Amino acid sequence: MGRITTRTPVTRIALNDGDVAVRRRADTLVVEEPLEIRIAGEPLTVTMRTPGNDLELAAGFLVSEGVISTAADLRSAIHCGGPGTGAAAPTSLSTIGVGPAEPATSSENTYNVLDIALAPELAPLVTDIARNFYTTSSCGVCGTASIEAIEKQSRYDVGTDAAAVDATMLAGLPDALRAGQTVFDKTGGLHAAALFDAASGELLVLREDVGRHNAVDKVIGWAVLEDRLPLSGIVLQVSGRASFELVQKAVMAGIPILSAVSAPSSLAVELAAASGLTLVGFVRGSSMNVYARPDRVRVTAAVR
Amino acid sequence: MGRITTRTPVTRIALNDGDVAVRRRADTLVVEEPLEIRIAGEPLTVTMRTPGNDLELAAGFLVSEGVISTAADLRSAIHCGGPGTGAAAPTSLSTIGVGPAEPATSSENTYNVLDIALAPELAPLVTDIARNFYTTSSCGVCGTASIEAIEKQSRYDVGTDAAAVDATMLAGLPDALRAGQTVFDKTGGLHAAALFDAASGELLVLREDVGRHNAVDKVIGWAVLEDRLPLSGIVLQVSGRASFELVQKAVMAGIPILSAVSAPSSLAVELAAASGLTLVGFVRGSSMNVYARPDRVRVTAAVR
Repeated sequence: MGRITTRTPVTRIALNDGDVAVRRRADTLVVEEPLEIRIAGEPLTVTMRTPGNDLELAAGFLVSEGVISTAADLRSAIHCGGPGTGAAAPTSLSTIGVGPAEPATSSENTYNVLDIALAPELAPLVTDIARNFYTTSSCGVCGTASIEAIEKQSRYDVGTDAAAVDATMLAGLPDALRAGQTVFDKTGGLHAAALFDAASGELLVLREDVGRHNAVDKVIGWAVLEDRLPLSGIVLQVSGRASFELVQKAVMAGIPILSAVSAPSSLAVELAAASGLTLVGFVRGSSMNVYARPDRVRVTAAVR
Repeated sequence: MGRITTRTPVTRIALNDGDVAVRRRADTLVVEEPLEIRIAGEPLTVTMRTPGNDLELAAGFLVSEGVISTAADLRSAIHCGGPGTGAAAPTSLSTIGVGPAEPATSSENTYNVLDIALAPELAPLVTDIARNFYTTSSCGVCGTASIEAIEKQSRYDVGTDAAAVDATMLAGLPDALRAGQTVFDKTGGLHAAALFDAASGELLVLREDVGRHNAVDKVIGWAVLEDRLPLSGIVLQVSGRASFELVQKAVMAGIPILSAVSAPSSLAVELAAASGLTLVGFVRGSSMNVYARPDRVRVTAAVR
């Protein structure tokens, strides 16, 4: 597995009432490296990510784009060597699998290219993925087209999900997320995403990444590799804001509740309302805003 | 110009010692809409952005990718209507220009497609832009290749820039940035980027966007449209973390100093060190960390 953190010398400057302290010391940084995802040898996308859980990242990305929905949809995955280094032998999914295990291969392998083989019937779905969600013949490129495209491509109806969540439990999820962020503690530089059971509050999985979309892809990728899709009755908690693309990822994975520490965007709220996803934002301390489908959030005291 | 904020009803839940207050009220959201950038009618990229300053966004993106470096490199720009709506007449850059002005056109126009005409000699530079920065023949996809690609493509040598900045002035830039964020005050949901004169601390331009890369592209796009590249003697201040791509954007625009409120990534520090860019992070209150080229940061009290 690639390194997740690295040490670097840093010049620390502290200004105190006209007094200045300058010190050289070592600091811990979160590692950022490009990952190229290939399908059957063809480059699909490049993302800047924190190494580790690369198969989850790729699997979650493919769920978000409407390509896969079960572990069986992925036939094999291999971390390729670069040109000039020998490519690693194809690796079964159970070997590369979820979690930190990675295939042993040439020491020159940068582990930054992951080649995925899909079930043959899925090949037609991998076509100009990026534009699928933004363009329709009716209005060119616009938010409405983006929402219609997701309604058309989603396999699951999160609007009918019977999940409910207690407001007090929901208020505690950002702290639970933060408590699980082991790499953030060292570097202060990571986004996080986690799946919680909406009824019990149990943490299913938590992932950190320099990219907030990547952290969400990793937890959804974990779920599809565990054959847990659709993620009925689950809360997706994220460390930052709620963008359109994060709501898209939740809807495509069948997640009924998305909770963000910070603000949602206009299009995130519109997509949540259109899809029937409960969107919660500004979950801080003992208060929160519910932007769509507030009926799933239960309060136990009297409502005034 | 597209709307920058929008109002939406929200359910506010406040939990206080077993007491619960639930209220419906209106909340202000930041607008997020897709923007497709086309070159001579051919789709180049789609980004989710806050409407407004779209030409700056596109121009800054093209600087970051090594395509343009002067205002004259852009021949015209037009906000296209979608299929079925009449396309607007081509608009001169002085009309669409910088700032909030947008061309008048069909009421059905979503202002989400911007078609750019480049100077003819630049056409060969618009080829598979995304992969250019991540792939070389030597190691496939890796951080080292990404850094080498930028060294090869950058027109400017920020390493030789004679800029210097006072540490006390640098410590005040996050507050100056925050003070200029008019939309953040209403929504809590935006990133910001600004250019400051390193010697005087004067604010040149500030832009907000749902996407942190977009905010940086907008300020660099403003600069190229003003024919101010390379941005010698300038500090780029950003509201969040410093990723590889933000350092890339600074280097490609000839900016010698990048200051981030939060943490940098490993690859951001490596690229800054290789390029000779001064990278400052965790600029909070009266302290900061300098990760590369600390010689440009001047302290006025005795160093201990």
